[in-house]
Amino acid sequence: MSPTPDPSNPIRVAIVGPTGYTGLWLIDLLARHPLAEVTYLASHRDKLPDIREEFPRLLGRIEDDVAACRPIDPETMAEAADIAFLALPHKAAMAYAPKLLDAGLRVIDLSADYRLADPTLYEAVYQTPHEDTANLAEAVYGLPELFRDQLPGAMLVANPGCYPTAAALGITPLLTHSLIDPSSIIINAASGVTGAGRKPNQKLHFPEANDGFGAYGSIGAHRHQPEIEQTLSGQAGHPISVLFVPHLLPIDRGIFETIYLQPHDADVTEDELFNAFVDAYAYEPFVRVKEDLPDVKHVQGTNYCDLSVRLTPAPGTTDAGPTVVVFVAEDNMVKGASGQAIQNMNAVFELDETLGLI
Amino acid sequence: MSPTPDPSNPIRVAIVGPTGYTGLWLIDLLARHPLAEVTYLASHRDKLPDIREEFPRLLGRIEDDVAACRPIDPETMAEAADIAFLALPHKAAMAYAPKLLDAGLRVIDLSADYRLADPTLYEAVYQTPHEDTANLAEAVYGLPELFRDQLPGAMLVANPGCYPTAAALGITPLLTHSLIDPSSIIINAASGVTGAGRKPNQKLHFPEANDGFGAYGSIGAHRHQPEIEQTLSGQAGHPISVLFVPHLLPIDRGIFETIYLQPHDADVTEDELFNAFVDAYAYEPFVRVKEDLPDVKHVQGTNYCDLSVRLTPAPGTTDAGPTVVVFVAEDNMVKGASGQAIQNMNAVFELDETLGLI
Amino acid sequence: MSPTPDPSNPIRVAIVGPTGYTGLWLIDLLARHPLAEVTYLASHRDKLPDIREEFPRLLGRIEDDVAACRPIDPETMAEAADIAFLALPHKAAMAYAPKLLDAGLRVIDLSADYRLADPTLYEAVYQTPHEDTANLAEAVYGLPELFRDQLPGAMLVANPGCYPTAAALGITPLLTHSLIDPSSIIINAASGVTGAGRKPNQKLHFPEANDGFGAYGSIGAHRHQPEIEQTLSGQAGHPISVLFVPHLLPIDRGIFETIYLQPHDADVTEDELFNAFVDAYAYEPFVRVKEDLPDVKHVQGTNYCDLSVRLTPAPGTTDAGPTVVVFVAEDNMVKGASGQAIQNMNAVFELDETLGLI
Amino acid sequence: MSPTPDPSNPIRVAIVGPTGYTGLWLIDLLARHPLAEVTYLASHRDKLPDIREEFPRLLGRIEDDVAACRPIDPETMAEAADIAFLALPHKAAMAYAPKLLDAGLRVIDLSADYRLADPTLYEAVYQTPHEDTANLAEAVYGLPELFRDQLPGAMLVANPGCYPTAAALGITPLLTHSLIDPSSIIINAASGVTGAGRKPNQKLHFPEANDGFGAYGSIGAHRHQPEIEQTLSGQAGHPISVLFVPHLLPIDRGIFETIYLQPHDADVTEDELFNAFVDAYAYEPFVRVKEDLPDVKHVQGTNYCDLSVRLTPAPGTTDAGPTVVVFVAEDNMVKGASGQAIQNMNAVFELDETLGLI
Repeated sequence: MSPTPDPSNPIRVAIVGPTGYTGLWLIDLLARHPLAEVTYLASHRDKLPDIREEFPRLLGRIEDDVAACRPIDPETMAEAADIAFLALPHKAAMAYAPKLLDAGLRVIDLSADYRLADPTLYEAVYQTPHEDTANLAEAVYGLPELFRDQLPGAMLVANPGCYPTAAALGITPLLTHSLIDPSSIIINAASGVTGAGRKPNQKLHFPEANDGFGAYGSIGAHRHQPEIEQTLSGQAGHPISVLFVPHLLPIDRGIFETIYLQPHDADVTEDELFNAFVDAYAYEPFVRVKEDLPDVKHVQGTNYCDLSVRLTPAPGTTDAGPTVVVFVAEDNMVKGASGQAIQNMNAVFELDETLGLI
Repeated sequence: MSPTPDPSNPIRVAIVGPTGYTGLWLIDLLARHPLAEVTYLASHRDKLPDIREEFPRLLGRIEDDVAACRPIDPETMAEAADIAFLALPHKAAMAYAPKLLDAGLRVIDLSADYRLADPTLYEAVYQTPHEDTANLAEAVYGLPELFRDQLPGAMLVANPGCYPTAAALGITPLLTHSLIDPSSIIINAASGVTGAGRKPNQKLHFPEANDGFGAYGSIGAHRHQPEIEQTLSGQAGHPISVLFVPHLLPIDRGIFETIYLQPHDADVTEDELFNAFVDAYAYEPFVRVKEDLPDVKHVQGTNYCDLSVRLTPAPGTTDAGPTVVVFVAEDNMVKGASGQAIQNMNAVFELDETLGLI
Repeated sequence: MSPTPDPSNPIRVAIVGPTGYTGLWLIDLLARHPLAEVTYLASHRDKLPDIREEFPRLLGRIEDDVAACRPIDPETMAEAADIAFLALPHKAAMAYAPKLLDAGLRVIDLSADYRLADPTLYEAVYQTPHEDTANLAEAVYGLPELFRDQLPGAMLVANPGCYPTAAALGITPLLTHSLIDPSSIIINAASGVTGAGRKPNQKLHFPEANDGFGAYGSIGAHRHQPEIEQTLSGQAGHPISVLFVPHLLPIDRGIFETIYLQPHDADVTEDELFNAFVDAYAYEPFVRVKEDLPDVKHVQGTNYCDLSVRLTPAPGTTDAGPTVVVFVAEDNMVKGASGQAIQNMNAVFELDETLGLI
Repeated sequence: MSPTPDPSNPIRVAIVGPTGYTGLWLIDLLARHPLAEVTYLASHRDKLPDIREEFPRLLGRIEDDVAACRPIDPETMAEAADIAFLALPHKAAMAYAPKLLDAGLRVIDLSADYRLADPTLYEAVYQTPHEDTANLAEAVYGLPELFRDQLPGAMLVANPGCYPTAAALGITPLLTHSLIDPSSIIINAASGVTGAGRKPNQKLHFPEANDGFGAYGSIGAHRHQPEIEQTLSGQAGHPISVLFVPHLLPIDRGIFETIYLQPHDADVTEDELFNAFVDAYAYEPFVRVKEDLPDVKHVQGTNYCDLSVRLTPAPGTTDAGPTVVVFVAEDNMVKGASGQAIQNMNAVFELDETLGLI
């Protein structure tokens, strides 16, 4: 009954849409996995690419016959693979997922299509109706630290967004321990440029992004804000809103979130805040609760999410009280995308979640 | 009576402590100034440096006899110069300023020594008693956009800190128009590495800082926080506290501040907020109020401070109202230090403030 | 008869094709020029751009009525301007230059169209016939250090390529002093990404170029190689070939060339080599002959070309002799493009060449 | 008799001097190794560091009792470990190696102390007499692609320098196939900043190195030049000299070498050159012979060495013939240091060389 693979018989993995950055790092990380191997790369391009030409770093790290992408053919894929990672844009993912599921494949979707449980909210945020509400109802939100018990044997996993992963891990313990006022959450976030995808554009042209820094997008209306609110509301048991403001960092990889919260009680101590995180994550292999402040440098290329918390001194001259500030760092390509997807795969197959990720 | 120089008789400038980054950019910018010239470089090092060896970029941009630093000798300096810029660490600045003033030089101090008007606060923040309270009482805080009328003819100007310049320009118009709740100010700030000075250390070693990003220091206790509070309190007419959280960017130059404020009235509009900035800065040569979001890339190497403001949508699921978010970008080495010092010099001598700075 | 402008009557400048990086830096640098002002921006785009939207850094640095680009209309431009800079791709430049010249404008062309004197060579290199051989015959190659006497009053100046500027300045003195074997020249060059232009593409997308380094293009067949050979052959008085290998640096701006040459005489000394450079450039305002090695960091944002030379120790174990190595650094956007174009404009109008460039 | 470990009984590894970058990456890479584990960190600091404080990235990746460094005590180390990696500066390495060998440990030395077989040459290059000539005579130069047969069971391995690894792999096949003139070798090299070590200094302070590029050191006298010459001379069977010129790249990791060589026969073809590399490296797991040009971006974080070769067109205007240009990219921290050290360890213990390195 268990889906756990026999070591001599590794999990066979298909990747749909491997020519973006999440595809690159899925392949790169899976090359290290002792119980999984990539057996099929599927592309919807007319001219089927060879992944080694797209990403010279993968030369020699993938079998010759796999490196040449093939069409997205669910039946053939289901013969060649046990599970498919969808590294597609939103909307494309929900077009293919039902067919892959019907063919018998498990699916881990790295797009946004199965993250928001409410199809009405999906439509409001993504400006397109949800076209697969049947599977949406069955999808597991793949944040193992919060939803681990739903993962074993799951057929469809919605891999969380990069920003929402950091925000959920950084806020949940304070919420569930009732240490903060849930109406007061401000998330100041910054991401490396890979978070914006691989398609060239003027703002991401090297000489425009290099050495720069600024906020971007429609402030207070980022698509990840409802996803964060969905998770926090579920954890709190009542509706929660946040203010989320993203910035673009002149680096490849990394997300840093500085989260401002008002304490629920004026006499809370920094130790209580810290201990809430320790309680929540003491046995988590990929969450490191730190006394020192985190830095994206310390997590790049890893599946770790680093966290610390501070209670600021009460300002002296007014009656404003102290503020709780949480700092979270992760690699947007690993814990924020491909690494977490592999962690989810491990959990689906009831393997040690760290396989391939150390 | 006017201190304005005759064009054929430029302002003669001494720089004390020119081997740091503020010294470098003072010399670099003054090389372009049509009515000023550097005539004396003064160092407190035992082995007097040649500035062209410290900074090869200055080769050919400074006279041979000036490039070789000389001792800090107030009498000799007063013969050679009309004004001295102090590019020294705090504490060193207040040791030299009185002697230079006594010798007849005007002084623009780029350190923190004359920024905080209250010597008790100075001692609390800098952990050393203020040793020149007499001159402290006379010092002008050199933020021309707010204190222009005090600058003409001033003998001692305290050049503002890099972070406080951006914060004061980004918050003051909203405060003075009573558009925000003054008890709610959160300043999320990020600076390029030059802001940390030129002395090598482990955290600023290239391979440790490059590609990194994180908050730093003792959160809620940065030395620039009281300086920001002093300016805002003065503008508001009552004590104001802020929460200031700095981050380190993997770039040389640039400061970006994302400032979160709660509106005074729930029905304020984004237009009203924007217009408060336009009213305040319409005639300012170095403040650009923008509809688009600023970016440090657009101000690097310039004396501009770019600003924009957003009113976020009211979140839908809770009773929290909209938030005001102000975005400010400047070059920490120019508007945040050496450029503003030259702007102050121009104002002291009643010149066009933009001389040498376009 | 002299074209020198009256100070109250500055040189009026038109820029054709200002939306690329050379356009940006022409406008930025000319904002500082005391005797020139931009009066016309001409674009061949259907939807005429506002340059402040293309380049937010220019906000407030250009008159409102000039910032909005106008069509490339030679008659109107000739009324509004004295000289036109062509910041167009090759082929487009030679389509417009004759019309602008006919309308009475002087022209400084930053493209490759008038650099190669031999139209047959042009066709071989650029794969298109030269369409304006009449003006080509009259064009001055605008490298002031070598061809200064041809510049005053010139109607058409071909602004040199970025790589050829560094190579010509780095090799010519050794050639003309007969210190090297002219059959042995290897130029190992590296450029910042702005050298590849502003149009986004996959290789120059931030996450692909950042932290990278490598050679590019068809090795031994770069378009700048014949341009370098033309200059060196002219200086030597006989045909000279070079091997030129370009690399892409993960920085915005800067060119560095490491040039390997075999000495003409085995007993040459490093002093003789150094003195050849000092002789050549002692009075040049923008060439700095250095004892220390240059670095692109020292010239970024400036019009300087920094140079040094080394004679390597004769290897001990074989009969190979010592090698001459020349190191050259410049900013590809300034001395390698827009700054040199302004230097040329100054020379054409018989002004101090450094105006606007310090 | 074979030293191969039982899988349930992994190789126990000690690291001496783990607080530099080679130490960091040894620990990081060994965390992935299926048949090795770090059991002892030894430091010569008075205040013994905890490696997790030095390198927060290692938090959770090393056992608590191992993370706290212990003294360099050969007897205790020999009980806890089978092999010791020396990540010490030169001179310190040869002080400790004999004691560790005497205690029964195998040693892989990442310093320069056992790389040059001739102690007289060592003294000339490193300005200090060699103090362990007995072990020097037994040391194996650990470049598996050339000296694999000496590695199984070796007690002392000298891990090659970062630059020499790339140079040896890039030149040897052309030498051994007699395709080039061995008197004509020029190596133009560039390295990321980690190559200069972890100790802060002015030139490597972030704002001085960032965005910069230039050659460094005493040109023609780099310490790696004799090491390169030793390997090439050994491969050729006669003395070979090279000219080696290093540059500093504004990136953390990566080495790129552009190697200029004159062909032995004027009628050599590019295919012959390419095939010499294919012949040499067809079965090498970590050398990728490419048709496209390599880039450091493609090898960062990997143990690969990427190579390509070009034969330039014969220049048209002189009698100079075509030149051979070889391009080599590697990660200086992996194939250039810690990764190669682990590859050597694998070879010493007769394991699959790729263990822990994919």
